[in-house]
Amino acid sequence: MSGRLIGVGVGPGDPELVTLKAMRTLAEADVVAHFAKAGNASNARKIIERHLRAGVEELPLLYPVTTEMPKGMSAYRDAIRDFYDVSAAAVAGHLDLGRTVAVISGGDPLFYGSYMHLHVRLAPRYRTEIVPGVTAMSGCWSLAGAPIAQGDDVFVVLPATLPEAELERRFADADAAVVMKLGRHLEKVRRVLGRTGRLSRAIYVERGTTADAVTMLLEDKRDDVAPYFSVILVPGWEKRP
Amino acid sequence: MSGRLIGVGVGPGDPELVTLKAMRTLAEADVVAHFAKAGNASNARKIIERHLRAGVEELPLLYPVTTEMPKGMSAYRDAIRDFYDVSAAAVAGHLDLGRTVAVISGGDPLFYGSYMHLHVRLAPRYRTEIVPGVTAMSGCWSLAGAPIAQGDDVFVVLPATLPEAELERRFADADAAVVMKLGRHLEKVRRVLGRTGRLSRAIYVERGTTADAVTMLLEDKRDDVAPYFSVILVPGWEKRP
Repeated sequence: MSGRLIGVGVGPGDPELVTLKAMRTLAEADVVAHFAKAGNASNARKIIERHLRAGVEELPLLYPVTTEMPKGMSAYRDAIRDFYDVSAAAVAGHLDLGRTVAVISGGDPLFYGSYMHLHVRLAPRYRTEIVPGVTAMSGCWSLAGAPIAQGDDVFVVLPATLPEAELERRFADADAAVVMKLGRHLEKVRRVLGRTGRLSRAIYVERGTTADAVTMLLEDKRDDVAPYFSVILVPGWEKRP
Repeated sequence: MSGRLIGVGVGPGDPELVTLKAMRTLAEADVVAHFAKAGNASNARKIIERHLRAGVEELPLLYPVTTEMPKGMSAYRDAIRDFYDVSAAAVAGHLDLGRTVAVISGGDPLFYGSYMHLHVRLAPRYRTEIVPGVTAMSGCWSLAGAPIAQGDDVFVVLPATLPEAELERRFADADAAVVMKLGRHLEKVRRVLGRTGRLSRAIYVERGTTADAVTMLLEDKRDDVAPYFSVILVPGWEKRP
């Protein structure tokens, strides 16, 4: 009898924003797997560190170093695909021995999470369950106290990596928006927000809900330096009753 | 010294999908407030019923009966606005006495939640905190085991109440989508999904993560009857590595 794969969302960063179900799942799992860049600690693991069962077996899945390769290159794509194949095989090895493997994800496992790459490879073959989590974006708008969408608002999540013209078109067409993966794209996003008349409403949040979180109006941010784990919120709900 | 207002997300329905922080907030609050339709129990209250402190003061906020009024009418809008004004005043009455008031919300408080109507009225005047929650949509795609968005996907939340032509345009322009507030709009949404070539990927979820949840491919659903608390998921991430 093979084991069970569980994708466990551990929320946006604050260890108190873990669900009771995630806690129980971690307490019951035989193996806890987590993604991290080689040489770094897993962000998801940091969130639930205090909740890890003493002596539980851990399975770190370490991204290959690909900084030398341009993202569009097939060598990059091949390296990443191979990494997910090898990671899925490592998890499958435990499942084949009848073990329960909890793969922890920051935020929610099926919303832009690395876990998804294991899910599509393993869910067709093994019993699988998902424990949803509080997303990073919920953590950010809660920290900022910013009501994001209401009523008939159309809400959009936009990766900052989109081309400038496409970002502009999509901002202009949304009531509420969240921009993710800011990194080195902040200057471009700021220009587009200005041209679509949304700059004054935009809120910048860095490392939302962690101890070193930063939140401010984007207009008050003096530089265009943003870590990868930062977002911009453009609240909707302009017709408040 | 006035009290503290806390908007507390209690997740999509499963009482285990409540966060540790929501649990602590409920244990510490002097007053627990919840919205419900007159004559109904609050859905949020049902989720955390087992976690309510014995003897805690409850403040039910009961929506007026407006079934006779068309939604566009100013009489409807006035009745709803008055209701939120009166509700905010009731909460403020407790805050003025120095009490901590936890307003519980299904899902996440600032994502299409009723709590937002209190927030915009009270946050400028009182200390306010938000405890984010797992959204209903995360609960639904987790139950369905459906990876919803990845990489550079554009993800969109669409209210089913939108006009048919607008729904069609927005479906055609999104990588991944969630349709909320289905109710009597399911037939229209099904037509639009067909015309945009997304019907075969669409998943129907009713009362996600509750004990009587239902999930199936939309193509397998034989009727167009859907409760208000149902959603359609259109997963993105078509270029899986």
